Amino acid sequence: MRFLEDMTIGQRHEIGTFTFTADSIKAFAAQFDPQPFHLDEEAGKASLFGGLAASGWHIAAVCMKLMVADAQRDAAEAAKRGEPVASGGPSPGFRELRWLKPVLAGDTITYYKRVENLRPSDSRPQWGIMQARNTGINQRGEEVFSFLATAFVPRRPHAE
Amino acid sequence: MRFLEDMTIGQRHEIGTFTFTADSIKAFAAQFDPQPFHLDEEAGKASLFGGLAASGWHIAAVCMKLMVADAQRDAAEAAKRGEPVASGGPSPGFRELRWLKPVLAGDTITYYKRVENLRPSDSRPQWGIMQARNTGINQRGEEVFSFLATAFVPRRPHAE
Repeated sequence: MRFLEDMTIGQRHEIGTFTFTADSIKAFAAQFDPQPFHLDEEAGKASLFGGLAASGWHIAAVCMKLMVADAQRDAAEAAKRGEPVASGGPSPGFRELRWLKPVLAGDTITYYKRVENLRPSDSRPQWGIMQARNTGINQRGEEVFSFLATAFVPRRPHAE
Repeated sequence: MRFLEDMTIGQRHEIGTFTFTADSIKAFAAQFDPQPFHLDEEAGKASLFGGLAASGWHIAAVCMKLMVADAQRDAAEAAKRGEPVASGGPSPGFRELRWLKPVLAGDTITYYKRVENLRPSDSRPQWGIMQARNTGINQRGEEVFSFLATAFVPRRPHAE
């Protein structure tokens, strides 16, 4: 997690990478989205997806998992440098969540974050509000997933 | 799953209900969103959420799970009546995904769907496109979760 003061608009950052194996697609679907085209190769081939396809919520949840891991890496690096460690706040919401192309078994998705807007919070002086465009790109360079995230980010503590 | 021809704009429908126990909140968070306020009661109390809070993606994934179960109930009932069974299509995306209030351990959320727009697909004559507003309401009647869903829905087969 970074502080508001460490971010710049336009900054692009690789969050992480994940390969959607058939097993991981089916395991998520069995828990949360048991539709045939997420559970079975043949049903996937017969669907509009054209193959065993990851649930959209799986694609989003993996992005979240990688975002948290990325923030934890940032925090560990800050601690190593002896700097104050930022701990993240809640997200008031995500907008324009889009699954642009299917993610099929075997596809590798790399997730990116681009900061689009930064401002201090009016009501909570120790927090700022960041808007970022998060995207997922497959191994052919195609954008498959996108959303606009709004999140509280902590402000760097000042010496009094 | 219903056919386009069976739906009307403004139709409101209860999708299902889920109680977010502390255990289910922590289990999802450990898999996909391991932030302290989703994993630990004390960290939750110290956060802006004010308690152990469900991951937003958990709230969304549970909604998906209940939507699939609801569609499967519809299909079973249609089959019992000897009617053709609709099988659902992919969702091109969700918009305006919002977590309006925290969902804390012990909260029970009832999810609803309200059909907002219906039209035949221009490019795929056997499909229609539905827009629906999905919401989650807690046991105090407060809206905690909302999104606009766009989904392909099958058209009722016609006798030639």
